[in-house]
Amino acid sequence: MAMVDGDDLRRWRELGQQLRVDSVRASAAAESGHPTSSMSAADLMAVLLDKYFRYDFDNPRNPGNDHLIFSKGHASPLLYALYKAAGAISDEELLSFRRFGSRLEGHPTPRLPFVDVATGSLGQGLPVGVGVALAGAELDRLPYRVWVLCGDSELAEGSIWEAFQHAGFSKLRNLTAIIDVNRLGQRGETMLGWDTATYARRARAFGWHAIEIDGHDVAAVADAYAEAVATADEPVAIFARTVKGKGVKSVENVNGAHGKPLDDPTAAIAELGGERNLVITPGKPRASGEAHGFEVEPSPPDLPTWPVGEKVATRKAYGEALAALGASRADVVALDGEVSNSTYAELFAKAHPRRYFEMYIAEQQMIAAAVGMQVRGWRPFASTFAAFLTRAHDFIRMAAVSRASIRLMGSHAGISIGEDGPSQMGLEDLAMLRAVHGSTVLYPCDANQTADLVARMADLDGVSYLRTTRGGTAVVYEPGREFPVGGSVVLRSSPQDQVTIVSAGITLHEALAAAERLDGEGLHVRVIDCYSVKPIDAATLRQAATETGRVLTVEDHWPQGGLGDAVLEVFADAAPAPLLLKLAVPDLPGSGTPQELLHQAGLDADGIATTARRLAEAKAGNGAGPGPEAR
Amino acid sequence: MAMVDGDDLRRWRELGQQLRVDSVRASAAAESGHPTSSMSAADLMAVLLDKYFRYDFDNPRNPGNDHLIFSKGHASPLLYALYKAAGAISDEELLSFRRFGSRLEGHPTPRLPFVDVATGSLGQGLPVGVGVALAGAELDRLPYRVWVLCGDSELAEGSIWEAFQHAGFSKLRNLTAIIDVNRLGQRGETMLGWDTATYARRARAFGWHAIEIDGHDVAAVADAYAEAVATADEPVAIFARTVKGKGVKSVENVNGAHGKPLDDPTAAIAELGGERNLVITPGKPRASGEAHGFEVEPSPPDLPTWPVGEKVATRKAYGEALAALGASRADVVALDGEVSNSTYAELFAKAHPRRYFEMYIAEQQMIAAAVGMQVRGWRPFASTFAAFLTRAHDFIRMAAVSRASIRLMGSHAGISIGEDGPSQMGLEDLAMLRAVHGSTVLYPCDANQTADLVARMADLDGVSYLRTTRGGTAVVYEPGREFPVGGSVVLRSSPQDQVTIVSAGITLHEALAAAERLDGEGLHVRVIDCYSVKPIDAATLRQAATETGRVLTVEDHWPQGGLGDAVLEVFADAAPAPLLLKLAVPDLPGSGTPQELLHQAGLDADGIATTARRLAEAKAGNGAGPGPEAR
Repeated sequence: MAMVDGDDLRRWRELGQQLRVDSVRASAAAESGHPTSSMSAADLMAVLLDKYFRYDFDNPRNPGNDHLIFSKGHASPLLYALYKAAGAISDEELLSFRRFGSRLEGHPTPRLPFVDVATGSLGQGLPVGVGVALAGAELDRLPYRVWVLCGDSELAEGSIWEAFQHAGFSKLRNLTAIIDVNRLGQRGETMLGWDTATYARRARAFGWHAIEIDGHDVAAVADAYAEAVATADEPVAIFARTVKGKGVKSVENVNGAHGKPLDDPTAAIAELGGERNLVITPGKPRASGEAHGFEVEPSPPDLPTWPVGEKVATRKAYGEALAALGASRADVVALDGEVSNSTYAELFAKAHPRRYFEMYIAEQQMIAAAVGMQVRGWRPFASTFAAFLTRAHDFIRMAAVSRASIRLMGSHAGISIGEDGPSQMGLEDLAMLRAVHGSTVLYPCDANQTADLVARMADLDGVSYLRTTRGGTAVVYEPGREFPVGGSVVLRSSPQDQVTIVSAGITLHEALAAAERLDGEGLHVRVIDCYSVKPIDAATLRQAATETGRVLTVEDHWPQGGLGDAVLEVFADAAPAPLLLKLAVPDLPGSGTPQELLHQAGLDADGIATTARRLAEAKAGNGAGPGPEAR
Repeated sequence: MAMVDGDDLRRWRELGQQLRVDSVRASAAAESGHPTSSMSAADLMAVLLDKYFRYDFDNPRNPGNDHLIFSKGHASPLLYALYKAAGAISDEELLSFRRFGSRLEGHPTPRLPFVDVATGSLGQGLPVGVGVALAGAELDRLPYRVWVLCGDSELAEGSIWEAFQHAGFSKLRNLTAIIDVNRLGQRGETMLGWDTATYARRARAFGWHAIEIDGHDVAAVADAYAEAVATADEPVAIFARTVKGKGVKSVENVNGAHGKPLDDPTAAIAELGGERNLVITPGKPRASGEAHGFEVEPSPPDLPTWPVGEKVATRKAYGEALAALGASRADVVALDGEVSNSTYAELFAKAHPRRYFEMYIAEQQMIAAAVGMQVRGWRPFASTFAAFLTRAHDFIRMAAVSRASIRLMGSHAGISIGEDGPSQMGLEDLAMLRAVHGSTVLYPCDANQTADLVARMADLDGVSYLRTTRGGTAVVYEPGREFPVGGSVVLRSSPQDQVTIVSAGITLHEALAAAERLDGEGLHVRVIDCYSVKPIDAATLRQAATETGRVLTVEDHWPQGGLGDAVLEVFADAAPAPLLLKLAVPDLPGSGTPQELLHQAGLDADGIATTARRLAEAKAGNGAGPGPEAR
């Protein structure tokens, strides 16, 4: 039982009403927003802010601060009302909610320094909270707590159960999920309604300590938090039965009142007892010290090298380089989705076991954990097959909205994986990662280049992506060569060049072989290694186009959204515009050897040479190659 | 208890060994594959094929057939060994496993008529099975059963728990999940190892009947299936404790033996008792009749119409058109992810409640259910916010590998949703859907166009996508006008045109306003409504480019992978190539009114007019506009 007195109870009730009033006011001023979803959780948050949340609002960067994540991001009016109650934002700013230019966006984003991550795509806050809690327990080793406010509707998202599963498995006692079971989703009742017993049974089956309470009984809420803080060895889920729209009869437990301001805010505020201006200073962080750091001799990374000509898979170079990077940088951590023996993340795991996180086959939780760890300043690298990063697309998208810096590696890209077939072939990863705001997309062709790019990724902001290949590719570059982001390498060039082939990764090797063959036929071909797909080296590409007039892009990817489209964009306003052809995977592949599949797709040296010859002979506008937009 | 005798037990054990031997042989012939993951489940599948699976291998299209889905698709050698045992494929074909051109791909695909859907991306087979089971219970109303073989590793995927949740909620008694708990994933032990009790507790908490057995005790396996068939009102999960590599000591329960052929297949086959050639004819389907059909007067759909000039949201037109389509076609069904009052799928739900499926906030399960329903010939339309379709990207990708025909609608696309902020803005949906093999991507600008396209989608093969807008847009087109897929509409044109603006959706209206304004200034601008983004109307675009020389694309989407890139591709080998500029969302938006956000992004009439003027004056190659590849 929490030690509380009558003053506490009165203050919490008052604060809860203030949070409701301010949620109603903010939504009314914005003429949009989710007041009813805020009102159901107001008492839960009032008690938390006043008694259990430890946070230094004067210093949001204090490493000892607790973390509060609104997984139900649409309850942003409540979050902002909390910040006002904590004195962190003014009443004037509160009323700027959802206005153009305001930090108080429709759903929370880190434009406010107290917000760790953007939420609003449901089912993401809890998995991210697992990441922050993992950082607290395993990396920072600080006693901060992670509090996540969830909606009951979002418990339908599988990602929530990935979080329940991982937190239970990892015994994250520093994590508390507060579930606002208000029964009503946007459209109607949830599957379970107010059946908190079933929710609790599920949570327990996933290794959590579960508590059921009336979420409007502030004494019960305080008891639940006290129990959460006292629980050793298990994360805690508090299933709080609440009433959507609580406090204003016209919207209480009423379907159809989701996501809109109240019809009569003045009357609602009066019904709630009017405006209040309680200011609450939350408790100070439990620890005042710095976060734990790993003992590493800071130095430039001693990256692995390979002799030119050796055949090495770039995925293996990734693992070796990452392990080397970890030896020189204490802030690098790695995560993998149960394929570390394929992505070679296992090399990092062996070298730096305390900084490695096995996330099992749960890609959404893997990305969310990476986002959570970077909240605390760690530099995560997360890896799986390129194909399976699509599983976490919404999390990658939201990482960009969170201004998160995470590094992704997708292995087994393209049809060149061969026998495993299309389910395992990443053929849309470049399109997906290019269309992430602020992203960097890299695609190395050899091991030395891979190692250099891995080291550079550690310092990149935003979402960065490294695409690697399953099979061994010959080392092209001398060890120690530098590959700046945004650069490219002209690998073959002569004044007689009639065609420029732009490629990267595995098909670059096929392009080089094609160029060699064409050279023997008297057709001179320039070859550019466009390892930095985004940003792209526009200057080099423009120069080549000017000098050769014809450009052929070659990639082991669908025709849409990949390297070819990135190159096309460079020439959109160029003149004279080059004739350009894209070679990409034209049709759904099956199984076969890598060479059989590359040949079938026209992406081997044979196919590239054939298309290059056709392009060299083509007159502009005559349909030199495959029609636009292969289907 | 199942009624079995000694002959049954002996035959099942023999058949199990045969399936193991054939798994070993197929993988040895292919020099790759997953024999150990096949051997653990061999006894489970032997008993199923011999006694419980009802399937007419002579007629895979028999509507009464049971369905068997290998959610653990990497156990494909076992599946193909089963088909051989059923006499459905020859031993010769079995040994073509993973060969170029073989129907026996590395992971199952519907190139084999007995395979409903492609698997191999883990965690998808069970959610698809839920879709087939929903079809059986609610649409076909046939007594077929859906059997899904799952791995234990894939239980880490959240999508599996979406399936557990939805099947439990829907009381899908026709669904049986057989979980091959062999303890070992690709890289090592699962989180729960052989703790089937915890798995069973989880399943029960989600409303399933759970059974724990020794998966190599064929009598226990038979009892479990008998219990499954006899269970009323609940789906059944059989957690079978098994040994990976069972039957060959050198790989039994050994870590590191995943996904590779056995070192000594000859010795292994001997240890398993040698080759066998049992042929099993499974039981005939429980029902011989046709599937249930809904009573509908077949007729051309009586689509809703709107007068020119009326402001209507295209999302609303979607709902109205879909409801009308459902009234004329009995095979159209609809699913939505708990936002049917925003996508207006609720209009279909009200008109055709028996053909509407509320999938709650579980986008992966929603797409999987659509895929499952189309297995049985239904024509599903699935809707949610465009942004949240990213949650199901891997399922959409795999739907294409499954040759599935599903129709998707993404509402609230782009920054023009306004106040809700970036978490709710679909800004990558065109890129994602264009890069799906065989996809169709449509983006209407008004209600009449939307209605026509919705009706056309019902007849499209593959994955098709309709992008809609939150706010009302003025009706541009007369009712009844036709909008063929692959077409476009030239909305403004004159012989004096100096610039062509290509747009679609909400920004088309801004483009028209800009053109009107520019016309007053003496700058004549052609405007093309490119409502069919994929396939795109290359001929019309090329003609416009030839006649105007300058092209400006405008879209409410990130610069990568959307309409602009689709248009660029058209001109890759055109001559003279037009000067082309892409206008798209340049930076991460916040909240604001739709007009404020469009203005900030340069996508309103002001911004479009400004860029069009610059483009009209620009000399080629002078960098007329934003640099390539906005970051």
